[in-house]
Amino acid sequence: MILINIGDELLIGQVVNTNAAFVGQQMAMAGIEMTEVLTIGDAGDAIRDAIVSSFEKTDLIIMTGGLGPTKDDITKKVVCDLYHKELVMDEATLQAVTQRFADRCMALTETNRQQAAMPEGSVVLPNALGTAPGLWIEEDGKVLIMLPGVPFEMERLVKEEVLPRLQARRTDHHVIQYRVLQCTNITESGLSDLLEEYERQLPENLSLAYLPKPGIIRLRLTGRGEDSAALQETLDIQFQLLKQFAGEYAFADEDIEVEEVVGKLLLKRNCRLATAESCTGGYIAHLITSVPGSSQYFQGSVVSYSNEVKRDILNVREDNLRRRGAVSEEVVSDMALNVMGLLDVDYSVATSGIAGPDGGTEEKPVGTVWIAVATPVRLVTQKFQFGKRMGRQQIIERAARAALNMLRIEIEKDIR
Amino acid sequence: MILINIGDELLIGQVVNTNAAFVGQQMAMAGIEMTEVLTIGDAGDAIRDAIVSSFEKTDLIIMTGGLGPTKDDITKKVVCDLYHKELVMDEATLQAVTQRFADRCMALTETNRQQAAMPEGSVVLPNALGTAPGLWIEEDGKVLIMLPGVPFEMERLVKEEVLPRLQARRTDHHVIQYRVLQCTNITESGLSDLLEEYERQLPENLSLAYLPKPGIIRLRLTGRGEDSAALQETLDIQFQLLKQFAGEYAFADEDIEVEEVVGKLLLKRNCRLATAESCTGGYIAHLITSVPGSSQYFQGSVVSYSNEVKRDILNVREDNLRRRGAVSEEVVSDMALNVMGLLDVDYSVATSGIAGPDGGTEEKPVGTVWIAVATPVRLVTQKFQFGKRMGRQQIIERAARAALNMLRIEIEKDIR
Repeated sequence: MILINIGDELLIGQVVNTNAAFVGQQMAMAGIEMTEVLTIGDAGDAIRDAIVSSFEKTDLIIMTGGLGPTKDDITKKVVCDLYHKELVMDEATLQAVTQRFADRCMALTETNRQQAAMPEGSVVLPNALGTAPGLWIEEDGKVLIMLPGVPFEMERLVKEEVLPRLQARRTDHHVIQYRVLQCTNITESGLSDLLEEYERQLPENLSLAYLPKPGIIRLRLTGRGEDSAALQETLDIQFQLLKQFAGEYAFADEDIEVEEVVGKLLLKRNCRLATAESCTGGYIAHLITSVPGSSQYFQGSVVSYSNEVKRDILNVREDNLRRRGAVSEEVVSDMALNVMGLLDVDYSVATSGIAGPDGGTEEKPVGTVWIAVATPVRLVTQKFQFGKRMGRQQIIERAARAALNMLRIEIEKDIR
Repeated sequence: MILINIGDELLIGQVVNTNAAFVGQQMAMAGIEMTEVLTIGDAGDAIRDAIVSSFEKTDLIIMTGGLGPTKDDITKKVVCDLYHKELVMDEATLQAVTQRFADRCMALTETNRQQAAMPEGSVVLPNALGTAPGLWIEEDGKVLIMLPGVPFEMERLVKEEVLPRLQARRTDHHVIQYRVLQCTNITESGLSDLLEEYERQLPENLSLAYLPKPGIIRLRLTGRGEDSAALQETLDIQFQLLKQFAGEYAFADEDIEVEEVVGKLLLKRNCRLATAESCTGGYIAHLITSVPGSSQYFQGSVVSYSNEVKRDILNVREDNLRRRGAVSEEVVSDMALNVMGLLDVDYSVATSGIAGPDGGTEEKPVGTVWIAVATPVRLVTQKFQFGKRMGRQQIIERAARAALNMLRIEIEKDIR
């Protein structure tokens, strides 16, 4: 599979190409090899050349970008030329776009109408989140998939429209199934050593792939076979064995985020959670509340970005602030313990650190973060030193994920 | 110029390709057009094919990645084969690498020594931050530049070694300049209709691109020309005209986030800010604190996800909660006003809404969000209805950006 990303904004570096990473991850999980990513500008010639030269190397192209309503969007025209097709109005899309505008009490313009015109013979992939649907064109066994460039629209289309169709048209009469185990607190090579014996005993039709993300290694166990039920059984047995080998490093047996794991654990125990955040600035609360249904266990957060708020709202001891500094085990412990009482919860997590780029000292360089987790029966603290060369955003994200992971470990201890 | 990024980790989405955005930005500012970015894996064949096919389209290739000490780094060998050259030990590099290891009291391995072997005839670009230097190979007027993939090493080499050398050998004096205008509260197609006449009158060497993000449309006006000063003048005039056409929808005349605009305004006024968040769950606080230096004006936030926290911490009147419901003008007003006193700030913003997917009613469907902004002299409230078909994440993001935008408007009123 070759991915073609279209957009002048990518070539001048105005936008970081996160679409490529997303598609790469999804394809890797589905067992489809992405061999190349090609980023080009919004120019007809470049788009045509990219399609033609890529089809010399692959039977499957996914393109993102170039499908919006504005005039720099010329992809559909190029595709019509290439395939010798006309643009025809797709009634279902026109209806959806019309409805979208009616919902917002806005008038449909001619430009919007044109978004519903599609190259004849193409399959329209409905886009529930935007006005430009995706397109699927198949000829001579070669598939060209066009998706909008807006990340959340593209992401939904890949998951709900593209991947199911790609799985459905596999011609090798093989069934492919996979399971994902997520591990953390171990390096990729450490995990590889730990699983050496496990991998040796794997049946021939099963394979294990390492798919690392920052702070997390996802293990994908893929099975191929003729008989779906038999494959399922083998896969179940081998997945259980994998979990045993991975032991304490495994934290989720599906491809979900750590905040979802935490949510499930809290629901199971019928417990409530709060956060007290300094350097993470509300990001942990945001991750927790991005999970649907989180209002069942999440009470709220005190984001105490200033020392006054730490002292006046969270009752952090003045003495600790003065003598130990805001970034200290003492302060973060006060924050975790006091937010528990204040928001009346069973679990809390607190952070205080230096996200940079300024504020670092010799003793506490940028990237220093103290995290505390309070449970009904204990208080656990840990100091993290995220790389000095990481950016502010990365330090905030790493700290938030580390905090959620500490929280997960402590809740799991209580469940056992 | 064509950029080739090498690394399996990019193809499976383990790492987001920020190097491409960095190189694109640097080249755009230097007036060198990056026409294509090609991302490939750590395979000799792929690297060779990428170099050969790219030199059919350009005289300048920059490659990143594939220069480290590990065994998947095969770029130098491929290049030697292509150019029929031998690897020879570069004494200056060997000395630098040896010194680097001595400084850290580490032994130099044979693998490390090999990093100092270079294709004969290449120019070594010293890497002060790592063990793998960059390389510059020029033959028949075609330049191949190889850089390490580690972002901060690559970035320094581009700025200090690559750009000065590229400028020195330039023969044309083609300049590219651009300006960005950000708009909100209008759809992409609505804006496109509004700017139709403006776009028609644009000089041939200027072009306008629409770069939408959730809730925001960035307009990039790009100019190309021979004479930097003349281009600058045309661009300035056309940018002013663009601002007039965009009118009230324009909110920033540079490429910064609304949270940065808010931060600058607060710094200018020497004022302090707090948030009281329900449906946005800390996301507004996160956006605000993602700006470096935000601790100068941001005191903190009370994320009141439950009614108890709204009542007990934010002193929202029980009566309002019971009779109007948590998602109401009355409750969000209480939240904004009371967090001001609690956190001792000049400005506050509060949100309460239904992010879904559950919790919607006939009267208050999913996507209903009340936002209040309190200033030293007034309280402003507004009800938003984000699309029913939006996902939870999009509703949270849209609500957060709408809240920041309301805040920006109110602070600007006070500054006038």
